[in-house]
Amino acid sequence: MQLNQYDHIILLAHGSSDANWKRPFESLLANVTGDVSKDKVSLAYMELCSPSIEDILNTLPTDKKNIAVYPLFFAKGRHLRVDVPKQLETLTNQYRTLTLLEPIGDNPEVVQAMEGAIISKLTPS
Amino acid sequence: MQLNQYDHIILLAHGSSDANWKRPFESLLANVTGDVSKDKVSLAYMELCSPSIEDILNTLPTDKKNIAVYPLFFAKGRHLRVDVPKQLETLTNQYRTLTLLEPIGDNPEVVQAMEGAIISKLTPS
Repeated sequence: MQLNQYDHIILLAHGSSDANWKRPFESLLANVTGDVSKDKVSLAYMELCSPSIEDILNTLPTDKKNIAVYPLFFAKGRHLRVDVPKQLETLTNQYRTLTLLEPIGDNPEVVQAMEGAIISKLTPS
Repeated sequence: MQLNQYDHIILLAHGSSDANWKRPFESLLANVTGDVSKDKVSLAYMELCSPSIEDILNTLPTDKKNIAVYPLFFAKGRHLRVDVPKQLETLTNQYRTLTLLEPIGDNPEVVQAMEGAIISKLTPS
């Protein structure tokens, strides 16, 4: 049983120098904040565009102490094994903890939806 | 109405130098080929690891003429707007056509599953 243990979740996308690339992530955030309070969730990018995780942390109220970072990644490579943990270590302090979650690509419903999307391309409709 | 117009679909993931990164994609392929014929779908990587799209094409029977490339990407940036189309152009010939599909992150069920995954992290269970 998972309790609602986080004061805030930062969605973390890879980032791109192409502004068009950001749109689906911005749209995802907008849809989620239609269902949960806006002060519960933010969107940051690991590299190549802003805001960064640090930018987001600088805007969060000080009562957001227990913060999760949820990677909008399909899989864990060097970025999620090394780069992001290092970054989170430098951003953790006595006022807040930062927890790196498993990537969204691990979620069984997301996996199932991807399988369905692939099969739909191969099945006459 | 979309007909089953492709002889074969190549799933295209970004690629990584970290072998662990490939596992969820390999697992996705294995699950899909549990439901559809194995000769209908392959997995390739854009960069940093193999097989490449070209490697896959070299192994396909010659009756696979109408081939789709389905990007396992969340969003379209430079890779899907420039790099991959250029690559596909060089790989198209009189024996086969290669069609680049919109990325899997555009699929409404995938988007909905991601929203659900995010909201589940914020909701007591």
